[in-house]
Amino acid sequence: MMVNAERFLADLHKLRSFGAAGSGKGVVRRAYSEADIAARAWLASRMKEAGLEVHYDPIGNLFGLGGDRSVLVGSHSDTQPEGGWLDGALGVIAGLEIARAAKEAGAAPVSVVSFQDEEGRFGVTTGSDVWSGHLSLQQADDLADDDGVTLREARARMADLAADFLPHERFSGFLEMHIEQGPSLDQSDDRIGVVSDIVGIRDMRISFAGRQNHAGTTPMHLRQDAFQCLSAFNAALNARLASLVTPTTVWTIGHVSLHPNASSVVPGRVTFSMQWRDRDVERLRQMGEIIHDLAQEVAAERGVEAVLEPVMGIEPVPMDAGLQAALATSAEAAAPGQWRTMPSGALHDASNMAAVMPVAMLFVPSIGGISHAFDEDTDEADLTLGLKVLAGAVQTLA
Amino acid sequence: MMVNAERFLADLHKLRSFGAAGSGKGVVRRAYSEADIAARAWLASRMKEAGLEVHYDPIGNLFGLGGDRSVLVGSHSDTQPEGGWLDGALGVIAGLEIARAAKEAGAAPVSVVSFQDEEGRFGVTTGSDVWSGHLSLQQADDLADDDGVTLREARARMADLAADFLPHERFSGFLEMHIEQGPSLDQSDDRIGVVSDIVGIRDMRISFAGRQNHAGTTPMHLRQDAFQCLSAFNAALNARLASLVTPTTVWTIGHVSLHPNASSVVPGRVTFSMQWRDRDVERLRQMGEIIHDLAQEVAAERGVEAVLEPVMGIEPVPMDAGLQAALATSAEAAAPGQWRTMPSGALHDASNMAAVMPVAMLFVPSIGGISHAFDEDTDEADLTLGLKVLAGAVQTLA
Repeated sequence: MMVNAERFLADLHKLRSFGAAGSGKGVVRRAYSEADIAARAWLASRMKEAGLEVHYDPIGNLFGLGGDRSVLVGSHSDTQPEGGWLDGALGVIAGLEIARAAKEAGAAPVSVVSFQDEEGRFGVTTGSDVWSGHLSLQQADDLADDDGVTLREARARMADLAADFLPHERFSGFLEMHIEQGPSLDQSDDRIGVVSDIVGIRDMRISFAGRQNHAGTTPMHLRQDAFQCLSAFNAALNARLASLVTPTTVWTIGHVSLHPNASSVVPGRVTFSMQWRDRDVERLRQMGEIIHDLAQEVAAERGVEAVLEPVMGIEPVPMDAGLQAALATSAEAAAPGQWRTMPSGALHDASNMAAVMPVAMLFVPSIGGISHAFDEDTDEADLTLGLKVLAGAVQTLA
Repeated sequence: MMVNAERFLADLHKLRSFGAAGSGKGVVRRAYSEADIAARAWLASRMKEAGLEVHYDPIGNLFGLGGDRSVLVGSHSDTQPEGGWLDGALGVIAGLEIARAAKEAGAAPVSVVSFQDEEGRFGVTTGSDVWSGHLSLQQADDLADDDGVTLREARARMADLAADFLPHERFSGFLEMHIEQGPSLDQSDDRIGVVSDIVGIRDMRISFAGRQNHAGTTPMHLRQDAFQCLSAFNAALNARLASLVTPTTVWTIGHVSLHPNASSVVPGRVTFSMQWRDRDVERLRQMGEIIHDLAQEVAAERGVEAVLEPVMGIEPVPMDAGLQAALATSAEAAAPGQWRTMPSGALHDASNMAAVMPVAMLFVPSIGGISHAFDEDTDEADLTLGLKVLAGAVQTLA
């Protein structure tokens, strides 16, 4: 089989025209929007032209089926509210090109998929979540977007296209190519990342309840300043995690809400988000323990109350060893010494697929590490290199 | 002259009935509201009964004049949106009782004042600010409250009562009794504070502009996390100020705004308030220098940009030495060994009066340091002790 890089890039640019918006190569193509449904209709026509059997399932996942049983390659074609042209779209068009090339070559069949609502207008990776069986269609139907529209109402716009859910057994494995969405490859000489794991995520909300007071009349030593608690917690946390974490472990305080949040008032309460990600469940647990203990210690030292809400989580997902090896072999052939094994810090449809079939992922660099933004981009040389690596791996599997 | 503690407390409770609201002894009596104008009418009637000449000036400051030239005693009778029964009201009723007792005793005349809008529905200490000449009536008239009502419109409700502004020369000095609004007296054995200075205030807004990034895909060492900049700045500031400040110096980060303030996004920008107060202008300047240098250092170390907006300020105001001495002598007589000299960390009408006449202030304890809240309170024994100390000082001056 011989992939056609020009045709691949032309299709990728064509897909961008559905919902092209903002600056540069920006795209706004929310799940179930007019642009999204039109993009899927165009994708379906390209699949048909390639001799693939078009299949929509009830949630709007679009398949181009290469045969009765095959490898599945793809990603999603919906975008963030302010999205780039590659995130998701890249993996779908790569899948289309490889399935098409396989048909042309009379090689073993390859199928392609564009999952629906990966970007979470309603849930998180909603289309693959429902197809994997983790989330029922009934539960999903009750999810609402920020404007109060339910998924039930949204998917009704595609109801005329929908057939049944496909049996997972039709597919021998799932491969997803994606931009890294981080700066690691871009800041190195490596052009390809073979994903080892999709990291697990832990999320919780913590509050310190001190005492709200007049910022002029309350001496420093009599204050129970909630912001000072947060600052002390953060500094101590960074120090205490240092000996436990790896270079790919991350933790973030991204949301902070002070009360009453006024310049002349000693803050009486702070609520903040604490998120941490790692590929190792045990390390995630140990980090949680440190966070929990430290919040209590800071509260006790400063005579305030710490409230720790329950920890929410998504488990780490290791990639299939066989598929990883196929990608690594293909990467070494196409880009000798210029690829690495790395975890994915972001969630992907592959996380859900791992519950029902072997999965693996491939990353190409994100310029400046930018994603979920209009100015997300990747050199076209890296896009076609990624296609080549992916096609090479598929060939050995199919 | 013999002050009547029972009559004083009865009047204080009666004043509370105008706008009584919320829980406990809470009061809502915003400047120029129906409750405020009714309270002033009642105060005027009590002044008249005491043989004082009632005088409203154009901004709504209400005077009870004891003679052609006299000591002036008072404070303000408007409240915060959620106020207590003492803040302001205490000083006004103390002034009323002392002026009344002086009249009854045929002693040297004493006058009383209730300033308008000390609590800043429109400006800050607006009534005394205008009378002192610092703010013109024209400028004040253009000030608007949170609902867009101008002071011009608000004071029109009292226009039928208004006479001219009084010449400052009618008064030999101004004495203001107030609750401390902080915990220092309440947490000690002292019952009286003789105010040495009203502290100066410096206020500025600082921003750190880092880089907004995905909280899963951006490794820790490649982040420019604006919240981490703030936390590092705060910790270093506390350490660096330690050798410069006195026990009464205060500094506060009371307002924090993160962008985009989402748990899965590395914060790209933080804007926060930095306020510091001290009685000494030179120390205020040195603190400002440390804050400025440190913000730049943190920004440079972390490769982000610091934006420091201009420093706004209110200058420190020392109390008159003679009036302070009179209060101290009286305090030692009424509460031997149970009083202290202390700065006021909060602004008061006395700050404005200091520009046009000698001023001094007296504090009584605030239970739990609470003020600007419905549950603000002080033991009645402390209220009457304060009245006694104030009356004793007035007697030696008049």
